[in-house]
Amino acid sequence: MENTTTTPDIHLSPALISHLQNAIPQDGTRESLLSSVIPSLLKSIAEIAKGLQNSHHVSAAGTSNTFGDDQLNVDVQAESHIRTAITTCPTIVTASSEEDPVERPVAHSFPAAPSSSQREVYTLAFDPLDGSSIIPSNWTVGTIIGLWDGPTALNCPPSTSQFLSILGVFGPRTTAIIAIRFPSLPSACLEAAFDSLTRTWEVTRPELSLASGPSPKTKYFSPANLRSASDIPQYAKLISEYISQAYTLRYSGGLVPDIVHALIKGHGVYISPVSQRHKAKLRRLYELCPIALVVECAGGKAVEFEKGEEGQRGVNILAKEIKETDERGGIVCGSGEGVLEAVTKIFA
Amino acid sequence: MENTTTTPDIHLSPALISHLQNAIPQDGTRESLLSSVIPSLLKSIAEIAKGLQNSHHVSAAGTSNTFGDDQLNVDVQAESHIRTAITTCPTIVTASSEEDPVERPVAHSFPAAPSSSQREVYTLAFDPLDGSSIIPSNWTVGTIIGLWDGPTALNCPPSTSQFLSILGVFGPRTTAIIAIRFPSLPSACLEAAFDSLTRTWEVTRPELSLASGPSPKTKYFSPANLRSASDIPQYAKLISEYISQAYTLRYSGGLVPDIVHALIKGHGVYISPVSQRHKAKLRRLYELCPIALVVECAGGKAVEFEKGEEGQRGVNILAKEIKETDERGGIVCGSGEGVLEAVTKIFA
Repeated sequence: MENTTTTPDIHLSPALISHLQNAIPQDGTRESLLSSVIPSLLKSIAEIAKGLQNSHHVSAAGTSNTFGDDQLNVDVQAESHIRTAITTCPTIVTASSEEDPVERPVAHSFPAAPSSSQREVYTLAFDPLDGSSIIPSNWTVGTIIGLWDGPTALNCPPSTSQFLSILGVFGPRTTAIIAIRFPSLPSACLEAAFDSLTRTWEVTRPELSLASGPSPKTKYFSPANLRSASDIPQYAKLISEYISQAYTLRYSGGLVPDIVHALIKGHGVYISPVSQRHKAKLRRLYELCPIALVVECAGGKAVEFEKGEEGQRGVNILAKEIKETDERGGIVCGSGEGVLEAVTKIFA
Repeated sequence: MENTTTTPDIHLSPALISHLQNAIPQDGTRESLLSSVIPSLLKSIAEIAKGLQNSHHVSAAGTSNTFGDDQLNVDVQAESHIRTAITTCPTIVTASSEEDPVERPVAHSFPAAPSSSQREVYTLAFDPLDGSSIIPSNWTVGTIIGLWDGPTALNCPPSTSQFLSILGVFGPRTTAIIAIRFPSLPSACLEAAFDSLTRTWEVTRPELSLASGPSPKTKYFSPANLRSASDIPQYAKLISEYISQAYTLRYSGGLVPDIVHALIKGHGVYISPVSQRHKAKLRRLYELCPIALVVECAGGKAVEFEKGEEGQRGVNILAKEIKETDERGGIVCGSGEGVLEAVTKIFA
């Protein structure tokens, strides 16, 4: 790989590199992931964080009920950081995003076009800044990134084609969840944090797990799309059960922080059902699939809702090919036991 | 005031100073508020934010169920920033905090003791870092500060003695809510944001209001201490009603972000009831009173629960003197209509 680009002003700590190497084939077939792809994406996350830190104009925009141009600007800025980052990654040949949901070739910044014989060919799909409704309140928001094998993310099996997810988490600190899954290697799900003094991404939690055994002392639940409970009596009943069983509620309304909360606590269930009146909002390509990979790499489950002949049923999110970039769905994800319980009860 | 101390490396924008001046008597009796107190406290909030940004060790500590020394360190750091800040404020003569809940004289850093004839004598009460359970997940957390007239906050009427509240909000940005209420002047409740490039606190929302009229399109609710709903059937019923009426849920579990969300959206109700099995956790001095002043200055209501002869009833938080620093209570606060509805239904 001649054209790999260094990212001189951002470093990955030796421990982080070592953890990533353990999850990535070291036979030369995936060389660009560590030499350009992951460093470039982590650099863009640090840049988005820096941009958000002084986006006060956005703050003022939130006083109105609808988001104006200022709000848009933050999304556009985040989009731009990621689009710029991937121009330096010769192996990312296609990209699309929640802001611009059309798969297009990446115009690389290096002079020579990548050789057609290159072994690594990837497609990036991302949501540059998720959680726009809570940005004005200065709540934690996130970026969602999925990386796919081949020149498109469409019409291919997500469970094997999408092998890398990165969630950028913008709160009091700047952190990222990185999930990697290749056949024949142990999958990885780790937390890294950006140290702005040394400009280094460090490993803070080398192994995030949602797989821990029965009944942790505190059980967390995040009930999204709660309005659908007025249409889905089983959902309303499930929430009542959580309450009567003294589950602990955490629901920020931001997909990234809500999932990350469960990952950091080591358990929890996130539920976003879909009803006739309250349609699916979450994009399968930009939100559900990358989240599902993270959750599965942590040992948890991620199920979506599918219309069958006998009403809705739950299927693994990564089991279903994506036909169009704008496909949407509901989700139940988190600790395996909690997900199974919720799915069973909602479809009872 | 000879001993006022400047804070050379933090600035308040002219617009911010102007807004604060409008709410503070300009007859010389409150001179230190703008010359030292508010700038010093805003400086400490910027310092806490900076400390949090690179507190990765804390992050790692969160993997265990209980918080160890690392977690403690963040609280202690925040405590230290505020304690240091007030040593430069000659008019703050007493301080206590949620971390060290004993009112003690402030040891000032300037050589000469403040004159006993000084007109301004204040007591600071603060919670240095609220929301420890969500720090590991990188969710937005906050600092709560109340300033009281006189050498103690105890045994005096909160509604008039506590005239200033500042909430520090540590998320993707660093923001602060400042509430000021003096008799004969219009009260203020504004949002400021810290620009780390210019090191300036700027006004981002000059007037936060919870007073807006009937039925906003989206109604928010934040049900805290949800476990108490298993003891308080009226609380469980109220939540079911919110759900069936398609209210929007936002509950981070951090008192500051949850209140700030309502302030920024302009409406919402935060409910933290108390039951026999699920006792009050929120401190009246360090949490409830400063929050109540913010909410009232925004035109909202803040009510706590009091045991009467006929069970519990709701009373204005600021109507009741605090006898001991560790007193605790429940709270219902937010938009006036929402608070009245919730209180009526919980005590029905």
